[in-house]
Amino acid sequence: MMVNPLFKLMTIVDGLQIFRDSFDYKRYFANRNEESDLKYALRRVLAEDIVAMENIPGFNRSTVDGYALKASDTFGASGGLPAYLEVTGEIKMSEIPSLLIRSGQAVQISTGGMLPEGADAVVMLEYTEKIDKTMIEVNRPVAAWENVLKEDEDIKKDEIVFKKGHSLRPQDIGLLAALGWENIPVYKKIGIAIISTGDEIVPIYSLPKRGQVRDINSYALGAEVEETGCIPYYRGIIADNEIALEEELSQCLKQNEIDMILVSGGSSVGSRDYTLRVLSHLGPPGILVHGLALKPGKPTIISLSQQKPIIGLPGHPASALLVFKNVVSKIIADLKGEIPRYGLVKTIEALLEKNIASEGGKEEFIRVLLKKKDNQLWAVPILGKSGMISTLAKADGYIKVDLNQEGLYKGEKVTVNLF
Amino acid sequence: MMVNPLFKLMTIVDGLQIFRDSFDYKRYFANRNEESDLKYALRRVLAEDIVAMENIPGFNRSTVDGYALKASDTFGASGGLPAYLEVTGEIKMSEIPSLLIRSGQAVQISTGGMLPEGADAVVMLEYTEKIDKTMIEVNRPVAAWENVLKEDEDIKKDEIVFKKGHSLRPQDIGLLAALGWENIPVYKKIGIAIISTGDEIVPIYSLPKRGQVRDINSYALGAEVEETGCIPYYRGIIADNEIALEEELSQCLKQNEIDMILVSGGSSVGSRDYTLRVLSHLGPPGILVHGLALKPGKPTIISLSQQKPIIGLPGHPASALLVFKNVVSKIIADLKGEIPRYGLVKTIEALLEKNIASEGGKEEFIRVLLKKKDNQLWAVPILGKSGMISTLAKADGYIKVDLNQEGLYKGEKVTVNLF
Repeated sequence: MMVNPLFKLMTIVDGLQIFRDSFDYKRYFANRNEESDLKYALRRVLAEDIVAMENIPGFNRSTVDGYALKASDTFGASGGLPAYLEVTGEIKMSEIPSLLIRSGQAVQISTGGMLPEGADAVVMLEYTEKIDKTMIEVNRPVAAWENVLKEDEDIKKDEIVFKKGHSLRPQDIGLLAALGWENIPVYKKIGIAIISTGDEIVPIYSLPKRGQVRDINSYALGAEVEETGCIPYYRGIIADNEIALEEELSQCLKQNEIDMILVSGGSSVGSRDYTLRVLSHLGPPGILVHGLALKPGKPTIISLSQQKPIIGLPGHPASALLVFKNVVSKIIADLKGEIPRYGLVKTIEALLEKNIASEGGKEEFIRVLLKKKDNQLWAVPILGKSGMISTLAKADGYIKVDLNQEGLYKGEKVTVNLF
Repeated sequence: MMVNPLFKLMTIVDGLQIFRDSFDYKRYFANRNEESDLKYALRRVLAEDIVAMENIPGFNRSTVDGYALKASDTFGASGGLPAYLEVTGEIKMSEIPSLLIRSGQAVQISTGGMLPEGADAVVMLEYTEKIDKTMIEVNRPVAAWENVLKEDEDIKKDEIVFKKGHSLRPQDIGLLAALGWENIPVYKKIGIAIISTGDEIVPIYSLPKRGQVRDINSYALGAEVEETGCIPYYRGIIADNEIALEEELSQCLKQNEIDMILVSGGSSVGSRDYTLRVLSHLGPPGILVHGLALKPGKPTIISLSQQKPIIGLPGHPASALLVFKNVVSKIIADLKGEIPRYGLVKTIEALLEKNIASEGGKEEFIRVLLKKKDNQLWAVPILGKSGMISTLAKADGYIKVDLNQEGLYKGEKVTVNLF
């Protein structure tokens, strides 16, 4: 690996910090707002705080089927000594009840129905008995507001229900529907150009000659981009040619819909050199990070031109994907403006099935299979040479060996990042 | 809750078994195959086994930058006693090398380059020294096939690389690209009709009168449907009217793109009764399950007409969503034909922050917040009345209290299903 001596290998954390110090977030976010139809807003990120304009449910609502009444009329009621109440009517769903409940009276009500004036509780159907057409027995007391959702109990008017940066889950979409938000302010989706470089790379529809391989990275990285909720722009294959690469990157920088560029490969020494030249030339500021303390993923480049990040990824598909998951995805999260949350990363705990040696001094990603044995989940390291794609396809996930760990022991508890 | 006495409350497992025994999977899957462009195949489910038509990489490929040579020429080489080799050329990427390596010779090669005839190993650049234009020193021995990915080492021709039912992750898309699959056989996406019922339900663009609520379920369930990779068909709101519901369901059953129907609400006693009548009437076989031992979610209905599942969900949004995640999603998984896999469900382990009492005899879903305290993750139960949507929006996930558990204790380890 030829690493430009001006750039020393650094950790992911340090590399990202340099990027964050160089990127003008304020300018970037000044122009990212748009509206989304609520129906298409799943996993979109809110660009503004959402304030409730109404109380929800907006009226005192029964949570059960039963009789609305005055709680005080049921105090002391029991099977042996029931309370007798006159039934003065039935609440129809969606109607504003015109009835007024006085002491000694009750009205029939369904789950979701609106309590009439004067009522302050609902007794469940199963604790009542019909005596005749207009009379019931209540054989259990109810407390004030029992079985009632009060008008502002779910959501209070003027409450902030979601903060800017919240990414919307199905139940959040439901809550916004409750409040009547047909269109909501979200950040624009991020457009990401994907470029594969290398004289040996051919389109996937061709039959590679010996020495050539099909363009795996455009497809695998495009799918990763989609999985993060961004839009992939497939720019195809650029031969190992400095002028062609600079021309292509300049084109991408000019296009408004492209916010970020991923360049994978080329794997020859010469191509790495001219990629570095092109990125420096395209700046400012140009190359921020060259070489990360990662395995695989060492030759990663983080560059910035016209406030668009350009990331140089290794040519090996497995390396490119692991760098995507551990470096690119973090830059994307920044650009999405998303508040971190549990559930954004899928992990599972398992015991390591065999010892793993590591050189230390770099973060190492070990692909693993998961296997259940004696009701215990085991992570089985998958070995395979660098440059293989099948190992990644066979894996259920990967574990990390930290910078300052010299390996992991058999039987140790590990966190598996699931694919 | 009025439960038809013919149908006793049953567990989710038993309820699903009844569905599976009644559904004609063979007929269903006979007509589900279609082709997908590989670029749009993320998370699609393979409808056939995928067999490799070629070896990958297809040629002996260097995994490092260095010199291709005969391993035997380096045996015994060391810093003190290096092997001297004649450099006869350089391998250009993507070219079939015309050179033949004989004993005592080496050619320069880049990562990804094709080994020339006669070479059986690559020595890394850093273990060599240039003596002059045509001569190098090798100061470390390499084993046969060291730093080489052999032509069929990644994928072997005729190997099954993915089984029918595999859902495609980014790296799987990459592997299919490597093999040249531009279009792949997948199962059709599942179309799911979504119907909200209830006189009190109004469209989200209206200002509800007192007693009315906006149509939360269409939006929240539509988002859930999307999240499972299916296509939601929003059918809108049907008033509490037996004829209107039967007409709407008949329409849905006639449409080819609709494979399944979700009906949520109505919450009034009367509407539940006529929903049951309509579903029985639409059979055969009609209603399979009415009432599940769930909390929330007891009034769930599983029905089947013309081989299309019709699921009756509770009207309360929180209940409807939890039933979706625990019942509907399992039927969807069956209909997707997807092989179960780690990572399809997001979970995390936490300690329970307070005791939870449960009546037993039903599966109970408790919404929780996650909180880190003293480097330990805690699951904090969220309390709130039934019918609230905000509790679900505040939750990070939920835990399950099993049928035969009478609660959970503070400090107990629980598995949180993340939203």
